[in-house]
Amino acid sequence: MHAVLGADMAVVDEELARLVREGLPPATTSAAHLLEAGGKRVRPLTVLLSAACFGPPPPAARDLAVVAELVHLATLLHDDVIDDGQERRGRPTPRRIWGNAVSVLAGDLLLTHALERTSAAAPGPVLADLFATLRRLVDGEVVQLRGRLVLDPREEVYFRIIRDKTASLFAWAARAGATIAGATLEEAVALGDYGTHLGVAFQLVDDVLDYSGDPRATGKALLGDLTEGKLTLPLIRALVALPALGAAIEEVRSGDVGAAQAAQVLADAVRASGTCDGVRALAREETARALAALDTLPPSAARELLGGVARELASRAA
Amino acid sequence: MHAVLGADMAVVDEELARLVREGLPPATTSAAHLLEAGGKRVRPLTVLLSAACFGPPPPAARDLAVVAELVHLATLLHDDVIDDGQERRGRPTPRRIWGNAVSVLAGDLLLTHALERTSAAAPGPVLADLFATLRRLVDGEVVQLRGRLVLDPREEVYFRIIRDKTASLFAWAARAGATIAGATLEEAVALGDYGTHLGVAFQLVDDVLDYSGDPRATGKALLGDLTEGKLTLPLIRALVALPALGAAIEEVRSGDVGAAQAAQVLADAVRASGTCDGVRALAREETARALAALDTLPPSAARELLGGVARELASRAA
Repeated sequence: MHAVLGADMAVVDEELARLVREGLPPATTSAAHLLEAGGKRVRPLTVLLSAACFGPPPPAARDLAVVAELVHLATLLHDDVIDDGQERRGRPTPRRIWGNAVSVLAGDLLLTHALERTSAAAPGPVLADLFATLRRLVDGEVVQLRGRLVLDPREEVYFRIIRDKTASLFAWAARAGATIAGATLEEAVALGDYGTHLGVAFQLVDDVLDYSGDPRATGKALLGDLTEGKLTLPLIRALVALPALGAAIEEVRSGDVGAAQAAQVLADAVRASGTCDGVRALAREETARALAALDTLPPSAARELLGGVARELASRAA
Repeated sequence: MHAVLGADMAVVDEELARLVREGLPPATTSAAHLLEAGGKRVRPLTVLLSAACFGPPPPAARDLAVVAELVHLATLLHDDVIDDGQERRGRPTPRRIWGNAVSVLAGDLLLTHALERTSAAAPGPVLADLFATLRRLVDGEVVQLRGRLVLDPREEVYFRIIRDKTASLFAWAARAGATIAGATLEEAVALGDYGTHLGVAFQLVDDVLDYSGDPRATGKALLGDLTEGKLTLPLIRALVALPALGAAIEEVRSGDVGAAQAAQVLADAVRASGTCDGVRALAREETARALAALDTLPPSAARELLGGVARELASRAA
């Protein structure tokens, strides 16, 4: 990886650290908290590798890599306020530590900075594309928020939400990297497809992983998801196979004393239903589509690395 | 007014109504709630009149007028979440009706749309200026938020907050209107000065009006302000004159059972201290500065109307 990207990824990491360090406390303390909690920096990596498919990435590619992570952090901060989120990456959410006020402000600050930086580094189509992507991020959250009132267990709604909330930013990252590096429109579209399929696979894998490991953690996650109105694909498919689970879902959502126990029963039922296998297969299909999109690009070390990123993500669910 | 602006202001109003009508429910329901609550639309008016100082406003001036109000609405939505606001323009805040989630999302949506529209209608300096203004709006809120932990009763802190939180958007509105209409840099700067002084006068008048009318309303407002860490100039000056008020302020902030009564005593003390007269005089000075900034522009009907806006605002405090 490092041979292809040179020092680019290090520069991006350093720039992200500097931004949250020199930002206005306390607004950016919360962003630093998320940044230090790790995360895979898949989005900046996608920008840089997509640019590197067309030669050494221009300096503006680093800016867009920083932007991809800043937008991601901003959405995490606001999403936690929206969902009353309790934990993120195994740590308490910033809003639980510093309150909603700081998370709203820090998100606004990061979002504004990300747009400003894009407007300076890549005005025109890349900026317009980012605006469209931000609209999709909000749209996805709005659709998900409706689930808090009435759960909608249709697969098409699930896929719309993950395409808008997760895949759209991956797709932008890939397209932006390509465009800033002088790719043709066809090449940028191919990389956008790669990003979309990568993002969908990423979310499917995440949703399957909820049902691996400690069964009690699964019950707890399910309780949180259903309270926030979130349905993931393994549960949706288990509900189609076993309509009787609907009563258990309502019990979990009722918030009554038995809700936690009902969540545990439901989690075990989904696990036993075997729907995770089908979702795993779907994730492999999405990965294959991401790889196929890369095939239309000229061969390069960066293209191989993008393929490696997709394969590695998919292997997490195996 | 209408003779100068033609149908521009009506088009802006219709466009704002259309945006919140066709936006994504429930995210924009909250914006519609604020929009219907009225408000003076001073910011769009400032954009259009500033443009009209240099001839018939180009169509892009209407876009920027819409943007000025959208940014204002977005900050109201987020500020209410940040401050746990209960009432706005005499109605319950959107967050009290639909919850924080909707206000955060609706604010994000309006802000993104405002930036996207600016980027299409006026890329370049007007967009860059808007980014700088958004940074100031967040900065002002951050400084104010710190007051929740430790009150800082310095006038310079008060003026920094109202310049950043209120005046900066008025200044942008005036500069953006001028720039889009082909004003010279000097003319745009003069209108920016007009906007800054207008915004400061506007906030000073608002702060004085808190001490007019029903004394019980004043006590209630003071209780809310101090809990949120807000100090207004009449109180700051009363505290300098009567340091003993410090104990009453701490009592109000303590949230103890006597807090509401302490707020009422404090409100009466500020009223009796006569500091409102000095703040009124300051507002008149700021209005005079706003009018003086206009003097450097070529005479026009729009320039006279901008002067009328400033004089009308100032007269509210008389």
